[in-house]
Amino acid sequence: MSPKITVELLRQLRQAMKNSKYITEPIQAYIVPSGDAHQSEYIAPCDCRREFICGFNGSAGTAIVTEQHAALWTDGRYFLQASQQMDTNWTLMKMGLKETPSQEDWLISVLPENSRVGVDPWIIAADQWKNMWKALSGAGHSLVAVQDNLIDAIWEDRPPRPSTKLIALGLKYTGLTWQDKVTALRGKMAERRISWFVVTALDEIAWLFNLRGSDIQYNPVFFAYAIIGISSIKLFVDSKRLLEPAVREHLELDSPSKPDLTVHCFPYESVYTELQAVCAALAPKEKIWICDKASCALTQVIPKAHRSAIPYTPLCLAKAVKNPTEIQGMKMAHIKDAVALCELFAWLEKEIPKGTVTEISVADKAEELRSQQKDFVGLSFPTISSVGPNGAIIHYRPLPETNRTLSLNEVYLIDSGAQYLDGTTDVTRTMHFGTPSDYEKECFTYVLKGHIAVSAAVFPSGTKGHLLDSFARASLWDAGLDYLHGTGHGVGCFLNVHEGPCGISYKTFADEPLEAGMIVSDEPGYYEDGSFGIRLENVVLVIPAKTKYNYRNRGSLTFEPLTLVPIQLKMINTELLTQKERDWVNDYHRKCRETIGAELERQGRKVALDWLIRETEPIV
Amino acid sequence: MSPKITVELLRQLRQAMKNSKYITEPIQAYIVPSGDAHQSEYIAPCDCRREFICGFNGSAGTAIVTEQHAALWTDGRYFLQASQQMDTNWTLMKMGLKETPSQEDWLISVLPENSRVGVDPWIIAADQWKNMWKALSGAGHSLVAVQDNLIDAIWEDRPPRPSTKLIALGLKYTGLTWQDKVTALRGKMAERRISWFVVTALDEIAWLFNLRGSDIQYNPVFFAYAIIGISSIKLFVDSKRLLEPAVREHLELDSPSKPDLTVHCFPYESVYTELQAVCAALAPKEKIWICDKASCALTQVIPKAHRSAIPYTPLCLAKAVKNPTEIQGMKMAHIKDAVALCELFAWLEKEIPKGTVTEISVADKAEELRSQQKDFVGLSFPTISSVGPNGAIIHYRPLPETNRTLSLNEVYLIDSGAQYLDGTTDVTRTMHFGTPSDYEKECFTYVLKGHIAVSAAVFPSGTKGHLLDSFARASLWDAGLDYLHGTGHGVGCFLNVHEGPCGISYKTFADEPLEAGMIVSDEPGYYEDGSFGIRLENVVLVIPAKTKYNYRNRGSLTFEPLTLVPIQLKMINTELLTQKERDWVNDYHRKCRETIGAELERQGRKVALDWLIRETEPIV
Repeated sequence: MSPKITVELLRQLRQAMKNSKYITEPIQAYIVPSGDAHQSEYIAPCDCRREFICGFNGSAGTAIVTEQHAALWTDGRYFLQASQQMDTNWTLMKMGLKETPSQEDWLISVLPENSRVGVDPWIIAADQWKNMWKALSGAGHSLVAVQDNLIDAIWEDRPPRPSTKLIALGLKYTGLTWQDKVTALRGKMAERRISWFVVTALDEIAWLFNLRGSDIQYNPVFFAYAIIGISSIKLFVDSKRLLEPAVREHLELDSPSKPDLTVHCFPYESVYTELQAVCAALAPKEKIWICDKASCALTQVIPKAHRSAIPYTPLCLAKAVKNPTEIQGMKMAHIKDAVALCELFAWLEKEIPKGTVTEISVADKAEELRSQQKDFVGLSFPTISSVGPNGAIIHYRPLPETNRTLSLNEVYLIDSGAQYLDGTTDVTRTMHFGTPSDYEKECFTYVLKGHIAVSAAVFPSGTKGHLLDSFARASLWDAGLDYLHGTGHGVGCFLNVHEGPCGISYKTFADEPLEAGMIVSDEPGYYEDGSFGIRLENVVLVIPAKTKYNYRNRGSLTFEPLTLVPIQLKMINTELLTQKERDWVNDYHRKCRETIGAELERQGRKVALDWLIRETEPIV
Repeated sequence: MSPKITVELLRQLRQAMKNSKYITEPIQAYIVPSGDAHQSEYIAPCDCRREFICGFNGSAGTAIVTEQHAALWTDGRYFLQASQQMDTNWTLMKMGLKETPSQEDWLISVLPENSRVGVDPWIIAADQWKNMWKALSGAGHSLVAVQDNLIDAIWEDRPPRPSTKLIALGLKYTGLTWQDKVTALRGKMAERRISWFVVTALDEIAWLFNLRGSDIQYNPVFFAYAIIGISSIKLFVDSKRLLEPAVREHLELDSPSKPDLTVHCFPYESVYTELQAVCAALAPKEKIWICDKASCALTQVIPKAHRSAIPYTPLCLAKAVKNPTEIQGMKMAHIKDAVALCELFAWLEKEIPKGTVTEISVADKAEELRSQQKDFVGLSFPTISSVGPNGAIIHYRPLPETNRTLSLNEVYLIDSGAQYLDGTTDVTRTMHFGTPSDYEKECFTYVLKGHIAVSAAVFPSGTKGHLLDSFARASLWDAGLDYLHGTGHGVGCFLNVHEGPCGISYKTFADEPLEAGMIVSDEPGYYEDGSFGIRLENVVLVIPAKTKYNYRNRGSLTFEPLTLVPIQLKMINTELLTQKERDWVNDYHRKCRETIGAELERQGRKVALDWLIRETEPIV
């Protein structure tokens, strides 16, 4: 990796910071956040502005350029990568280290008095703007919304914003028409006396309208905004995309059935002026919902007295609780996914001894096998395929220069998933194709015990996921071990593989309670720097649990694994398992054998079936 | 319980709200918070203003009086009690129920436009003031600091502020001189470039100066403030208390050894003007530390630019980590406490069949037995002594009208503790003196399993207590059961039985990480309304744990029980225990027998010794 040369770019940006074409008065610093105008986790190439200016292309990081300095803040996952990708014009600010100043503190320490700090209000979230604004004004500076993005201004050949073909999903996949979803949303709005709701998250818009796109790699979403009123629907999307007859019919654009379910379409860019018009027509006590993570630009259009900023929108909550059709779809997607993986693992057993299989070739093979399955759309995230020491790099992604060959001597970890029309998958398995060491087995078994502890946990309705996080760690902790990431994230249904508002992590306290129908991952791990990585990940469905008693009639919940891929028996030290844990493994493998076996049979995949049967033998 | 008649009091208060003697302009509402000027959990009679105005004497609650209304907010523990203690002039606002408005929302809904809401700035914490101020000003009202307390103005026969004798604790008890503590504190201040620290919490002042008082029942503290500078010490306390030669000598009042360790004494009331003087002399960049829970009155004396508000003060953190002398003292206190309880339980076995033992008489007997132990000072909180259905009331305290007789047919729960010069205790045992039902045993065993899961937990250094909370619940959850309180709180050393900044609870995320030397309680429970209550509480010390591995050299921690009182074997369904849990019980009982047995022997308490030996037989 050689660093990006940024001398000239920085010179141009610093000129733009003084250019009256963009701003009335010069600014002394310019902040370049990581995200897009929708605060997406994955972003389109046209939105990779921070990468463009500094060269660092990790998923998290903020660049700040002043007249004298240029600095980038990122977290521990990316210290090495950022230091390799950036040239000496940039200072790396290692977040999480005591000596590293916050962006605010650093700005205050380097800026001359009464400085003006600029930022594009479309790509900074309202809550972040507020914090930055407070800190700067407390120190005598000001934060300025620069309407023209200064990176775009100097970015020649900036890719255009994608405008891919939209797919309309029928009831067979969604379980609810978009009209039903709008009506349910309006019910929630009426309950809280809300007149309008501004939808800015791309997955919420896709879910609400039962539409999908492919504007952002891995995430089947499309660039759009929506403003939903009690009796009106405004959709902001590139008008070319609405020429498709299937989409027109789906949205009933040409023959709306009801006036209050008529979709009024506007160009993507006109959301600002339309929202202004909505606000101008508000009665005194009317309120508008907007997510507190929405862009500062849109948030500030709504006068404070009319604004109701919420941490999780009703769509985010509704989307998280899957309906029976979605659950059925997720189950089907996971069966197909397991078929592909059984085939992959059987193939690996034969191919690895030849010495020609690499991290990249396995990832390619996995994609090929998945693509043979019905309704396959694409991957749900970049495959993590890692051998030996590479497995210890939690966010590893094989590149030609790091690509390692699989062997009979090293642990192999593969974390992968796909988008199917009926659901999204995400599964991690860790395997050894020779003879694992006792230590590798011991660590694997602790991780397995943690995985089971979460998967088999019974807990009261209303429990938040973060309360389950320690269950995944207890066995590792007993041995003095741990892993430095959360245990689980919400998973969308043919949508983003990471979604809120629930999860299982020690890091957050603001997650929403788990409810039957929610789907999360269960993925504890253990990583030994320079040696190996272990992670065991299933996607699990929250279901009601039957318990002996029922305290205060609250009801209890537990998890049902949707992922049905064998856990390698060779890696387990069965002596470390309790009888309950052995029963769990055998029960899980019985289910894998029954469900996936039947599908392998149907698809005539004999080699994979044999592999599956061997790998699901009961343990004692 | 008959309600307090408040018609006349409310009339007087409403007059005071318009009286120019107290305020320049009338106020339309007056807030009466629960606490004192130090945000103490337990308060002195002179500070029971909320009880005085409305009659409700629970530990938590806020009263608000407007020209038309009077309302009291309290939580689920106190709904019944508050409704019984208040007359019909008062509306009970049940906190935690969906339909209950917040104080702010309620005020906004009942007040005429542009109203003025008053509160005594000394008894409202700075963070609460800020929230209330924001909400009210957002709605066009204002929050007004009323310097004269309006309750005191109408309270005839208000008790005087206590000014009890101070005790100076020597090195034998404290392990560190107050001079060493001041020097360590100044080290922390210098690290963060802090010039002054305003100490407002009574237990922090007591701990810092190695002094104790008895101004507040159960808490060995005294009314005082302190302002510690880098080279100066200001102590604000009733000057009469400093006449005692032992105290003068302890504080070196008459012959200070060093100028910067000279204690300058001021009257308690002059803290406000002295702090003003300190602030007036500040250089431009100087900072003052104050806890964000300190009173609004003192906090606002410090200009914003000089104020550094912190959630936990360095004294709070230093006090939480006990030094070797304090740990030794806590161990001694728990041995003495266990002697008293063994004696009590042996006595109960003989007395209960006579049918004359009541909840109150056991509490009295327990106090009598504790008072026979060396260095006994008093109880550390009101004894919870409860039989059968009374045990299900978590904050029960026996009163003549609820007093129940102990029998061979009902479960008995006793939660009690004492202050000794060398330490503070807090222990809960649940027992049956006849034959417990299978169901009672089952529930007890789940609680025991939870208790053991926390007590035996091994976890990485830096772990916050809230991450351990679910361990205490897992066995109950499996059976569909739970308890609606936290699992543990910090415990002071001859100080408050509840202290921050650590604890074990699902409710908080802002606790500080557990460290070796911290002392917390481990007290899961189960409560069956109308039938029985079960709780098992030990005070435990955080100690380093030896583990097989040591991930990233972080080190691990676990707990050592300080409480050494047998857990009733009769209540355990041993079939529900794992081998590891059985080993824990046997190991714990072996330790009880050895340590407490030796002390019972030394004290010649033969009956209790026989009881102890019988109750610590190993289980299989």
